[in-house]
Amino acid sequence: MRVLGVDPGLTRCGVGVVEGVAGRPLTMRGVGVVRTPTDAQLAHRLVALEQGLDQWLDDHRPEYVAVERVFSQHNVRTVMGTAQASAVAMLCAARRGIPVALHTPSEVKAAVTGTGRADKAQVGAMVTRLLRLDAPPKPADAADALALAICHIWRAPAQNRLQQAVALHTSKGRSA
Amino acid sequence: MRVLGVDPGLTRCGVGVVEGVAGRPLTMRGVGVVRTPTDAQLAHRLVALEQGLDQWLDDHRPEYVAVERVFSQHNVRTVMGTAQASAVAMLCAARRGIPVALHTPSEVKAAVTGTGRADKAQVGAMVTRLLRLDAPPKPADAADALALAICHIWRAPAQNRLQQAVALHTSKGRSA
Repeated sequence: MRVLGVDPGLTRCGVGVVEGVAGRPLTMRGVGVVRTPTDAQLAHRLVALEQGLDQWLDDHRPEYVAVERVFSQHNVRTVMGTAQASAVAMLCAARRGIPVALHTPSEVKAAVTGTGRADKAQVGAMVTRLLRLDAPPKPADAADALALAICHIWRAPAQNRLQQAVALHTSKGRSA
Repeated sequence: MRVLGVDPGLTRCGVGVVEGVAGRPLTMRGVGVVRTPTDAQLAHRLVALEQGLDQWLDDHRPEYVAVERVFSQHNVRTVMGTAQASAVAMLCAARRGIPVALHTPSEVKAAVTGTGRADKAQVGAMVTRLLRLDAPPKPADAADALALAICHIWRAPAQNRLQQAVALHTSKGRSA
């Protein structure tokens, strides 16, 4: 199972691709950040983010996209941009028929560190260990995107199997 | 000048097209609502909204798109969906090279009624009068979208002329 994790943001949008199945060692296929210029108009930043994410989807062909669920109570000053960036990520994936899963920050932290209250350093350390990397991915947004992808692979096997069965059934129905 | 106003929302996204220039009578070219099913997944609702707005842009070819500026302090429960819907509207327009303008709710109310604290009924009544309609457009989201378009035509002539000059200069540079 290949999953693209997206840590949404307008200035730095973390992206990470992880391949594997629950219970086996995981492999990192790519990690990075899509940046948009802070001095550009909001509408143009959204277009630049769309182009960057479409490139990642073209290059890695993930079967699932896992996006961090944004809450309005967290950091009111930046939450609007985060919500808008997450909308672009969901749109890019769903338009291609790729299933989108949303995971909360505490679900992601709990999945990779065992506690929903882990800090950035703990998440980075566990991502490094789980993917057998030489050093923690930087910036933190990139590490968070990998953590999202790992969380999805580990948390959602039952849900994924159901979605795959539905997709298979639908495509068979269409080709019949 | 033809302007598409968008009152962003996931359940009901108001859209209205107004044509005219400041200081002359205005003409309504279209009004409606793009709806997405409340029981669908968020990613699929965003795709449905994108398809609906793309259809409005195809049908009416506006020169400007005016979107309501969303504030995080207003109604925390629905603000995330509103922010995400506004991102889709900005993206659809900017991707086609159509300039996007953001106006706050109080700018819009002040433009069409003379006071930033007007209620929905006042806005609806003034939109009806200014566009010489037989009755206020319903639902209120549709009337608000027309008010946004009117606000843009009246507020932004200087700004629009500048943008047009830049666009003309750029396209001349490209074709040369």
